[in-house]
Amino acid sequence: MAKVIKFKKIDNDFNYYVEELTSLFQNDLYSINSIILDKLDSKVPLIKEIASYLILSGGKRLRPLMTSCAYHICNESNISKKNYIGLAAAVEFIHAATLLHDDVVDSSKKRRGSLTANEVWGNKTSVLVGDFLFSRAFQLMSKDGSKEILKLLSDTSVIISEGEVLELSNDKILTINEDIYLEVINAKTASLFSASCQVGAMSTNTSKEKIEALKSFGTNFGISFQLIDDVIDYSSSSKELGKNIGDDFKEGKITMPVILAYLRSNIKEKQFWKKTIQDLKQENSDFNKAYNIIKKYNCIDDTIERANHFARKAVDSLGIFKDSKYKNIFINLVNSSLNRIN
Amino acid sequence: MAKVIKFKKIDNDFNYYVEELTSLFQNDLYSINSIILDKLDSKVPLIKEIASYLILSGGKRLRPLMTSCAYHICNESNISKKNYIGLAAAVEFIHAATLLHDDVVDSSKKRRGSLTANEVWGNKTSVLVGDFLFSRAFQLMSKDGSKEILKLLSDTSVIISEGEVLELSNDKILTINEDIYLEVINAKTASLFSASCQVGAMSTNTSKEKIEALKSFGTNFGISFQLIDDVIDYSSSSKELGKNIGDDFKEGKITMPVILAYLRSNIKEKQFWKKTIQDLKQENSDFNKAYNIIKKYNCIDDTIERANHFARKAVDSLGIFKDSKYKNIFINLVNSSLNRIN
Repeated sequence: MAKVIKFKKIDNDFNYYVEELTSLFQNDLYSINSIILDKLDSKVPLIKEIASYLILSGGKRLRPLMTSCAYHICNESNISKKNYIGLAAAVEFIHAATLLHDDVVDSSKKRRGSLTANEVWGNKTSVLVGDFLFSRAFQLMSKDGSKEILKLLSDTSVIISEGEVLELSNDKILTINEDIYLEVINAKTASLFSASCQVGAMSTNTSKEKIEALKSFGTNFGISFQLIDDVIDYSSSSKELGKNIGDDFKEGKITMPVILAYLRSNIKEKQFWKKTIQDLKQENSDFNKAYNIIKKYNCIDDTIERANHFARKAVDSLGIFKDSKYKNIFINLVNSSLNRIN
Repeated sequence: MAKVIKFKKIDNDFNYYVEELTSLFQNDLYSINSIILDKLDSKVPLIKEIASYLILSGGKRLRPLMTSCAYHICNESNISKKNYIGLAAAVEFIHAATLLHDDVVDSSKKRRGSLTANEVWGNKTSVLVGDFLFSRAFQLMSKDGSKEILKLLSDTSVIISEGEVLELSNDKILTINEDIYLEVINAKTASLFSASCQVGAMSTNTSKEKIEALKSFGTNFGISFQLIDDVIDYSSSSKELGKNIGDDFKEGKITMPVILAYLRSNIKEKQFWKKTIQDLKQENSDFNKAYNIIKKYNCIDDTIERANHFARKAVDSLGIFKDSKYKNIFINLVNSSLNRIN
C-alpha cells in the first residue's frame, strides 16, 4: 500500500507562525522564562506549586513574545536595552493571574486539556495565588518599567477587571448587544495584547506615532483572536483551545455567534435560547439544535467576517513601519489566526 | 433620681485617639476621601456599587491616616508636597481589595456589622471587584509614587498574598507554631501598616534611618494590633470588631490564644481542640469549654503580654524623632490599642 504523505499547509497555519515567532526570539524567551521561573519562587511552597502548574503548563507565551517582537520592530539602534524582558514576564504574570481568577469565576474544570487549578486546589487558593501573581507582575513592572509603562500596565489591569465584572453583570443576558460584547472582549483579551505590544515599543526610543500603531495592532489582533475563539467552540474540526466543542454553549456562555443568532431568531427560536442559555435547561440534542440555528442565520460566517475586519485593521496599523522580518511575522500571525478554525 | 454622669476614661481609649488622629489630619483625610470617591468610579455601575459598599461603610481609614501622620513626623521643611495623599488612597484600596478577597476565602457573612459583599453580590463579583480595587491602587501608585515607593508597595502586595496562602495552607492545622503564625500576621496585617507609614516618610526628604524607624513602628504596631484582635474574639465585653464573640472559634480559625492553649493542653483537651477546630464538630457548649481551657492556661493574658511586647518595640522605634504632636499620637495609638479588649 502506498504511503500517504501529508503536506502541512504551513503558510496559513497559526501554530507554524507562533513557532517561527518563538524561534526568532528564542534568546529573549529563554531570558523571559528564567525570570518567570525565578519569580514563581515563594517561601510558601503551595504558591510555587500552583503557579508553576498553570504557568509552566505549556502556554504559548504569545503575549511576552509580542512584547519582544514589538521591541525589535521599533528598536532602530544597535544597542539593545534588556528591560523589556522583565516587562514581558510581567505581562505573562498578569495573564496568568487573570486565568486563575477567570477559572474560579467561570467554575471551569479544564484549561489547555488539564484540570484547572481551582479543580485541583480549590477556589480559595486559586484566588490568592492569582493575587500573588498579580503582585509579582507589579513588582517586575516597578523594577523595569518607566513611569509611562507603569501607568499603561496598571491602567490595563483596571480595564481587565472592569471587563470581567462587565461580563459577569451581563452573564446569561441574551440581549447584550454587540457593542457591549466588543467592549468586554476588548477589556478581557485585546487590552493585554495591546499593552504587550506597547511596552515593547515603549522600551525603545521610538516615536509616539509608532507606539500608537502597535497599540492599535494589539487591540485589533486581540479582538479578532477572541472572535475566532468564539467560533472555534461551535466548529467541529478543531482542538485548538484544549477544551471540547460546545463547552461555551453548555456553560450558557454568551459569545458572538449566540448574540447574532439570538438577534436573528424567530419567536420560537428565541424561546429556545432563553431555555438553554438563560435558564441553562439543556437536553442532549440541544447543542445540535443551537448549532443549526447558528448555521441557519450565517452567524459563524458573520463572526468570522467581523474577526476578519479587525484583522485587516491590525495589519493596516503596521503600515508606518518599514518592512522587516519582525513586521512580517506580526502580519502572518494575524492572518493565520483567522484560520485557527480549520 | 440623681442623674448618673459617666466619665469616659479617654486617656486609654483607642477610639478617642483615632478620632484625634482624624481631626488632626482632617484636611488630608478630606483630600484622600475625594481621591477614593473619584477612583471608585467606573463605567461598570456594579463595580462602583460594590466598591462603595465596602469602602464607604465606615472604616476608620487607619492606614491612610498613618501615612499622613508619618509624613508629618518626617517633614521638616515648610513646603508640603501633596503626593502622599494619592499614596494614602492607594494603601486604602489595597486594604479594601484584601478584605474583599479575604471574605470570599473565609466565607465570611459579616464585616463591621453589615453583610459582606460576597453575601450580597456573591463570591465571583467580590473576587473581580477586589481585582479592580487592587488595580486602582497600582494606578494611583504609578501616578504618585517614586520608583522606591512603587517597589515597596508592590513588594508589600506580594507579602500580603503570600501570607494569605500561608494562612490557608495552615488552615485548621493546630500544630502551627507561634513563629509561623507571627509570619502570617506580619504578612496579613503588619506589612501594610508598615508600608502605610513608610510611604508617608518616603514622600519627604527624610533620612533612611527615619524611614527604617517608621517601618519598624508600623510592623510592630500591626502585630500588636492583630494579637489584640485575636484576644477580642475571646473576651466578653467588647463589640470592637463588629462581629460576635466566638466567631473565630466557630469558624475553626486558629489564632494566638488557641495556638498557646493547644500547646499547653493535656491529651484529653488536645482531643477537644482536634474535634472542635480541626474537624469543626462543635456543640453549643463548646465555646465555653474552649474559653475555660484558654483561661486555665492563661492564654489570654499571655497573648496580651505578647501584644504588649510588640507595642513596646513600636513605641521605642520612634525614639529617634524629636517630640511632636504627631509622634505623640502614634505613641498614644499603640498604647491605647492594647486597651481595646476592655
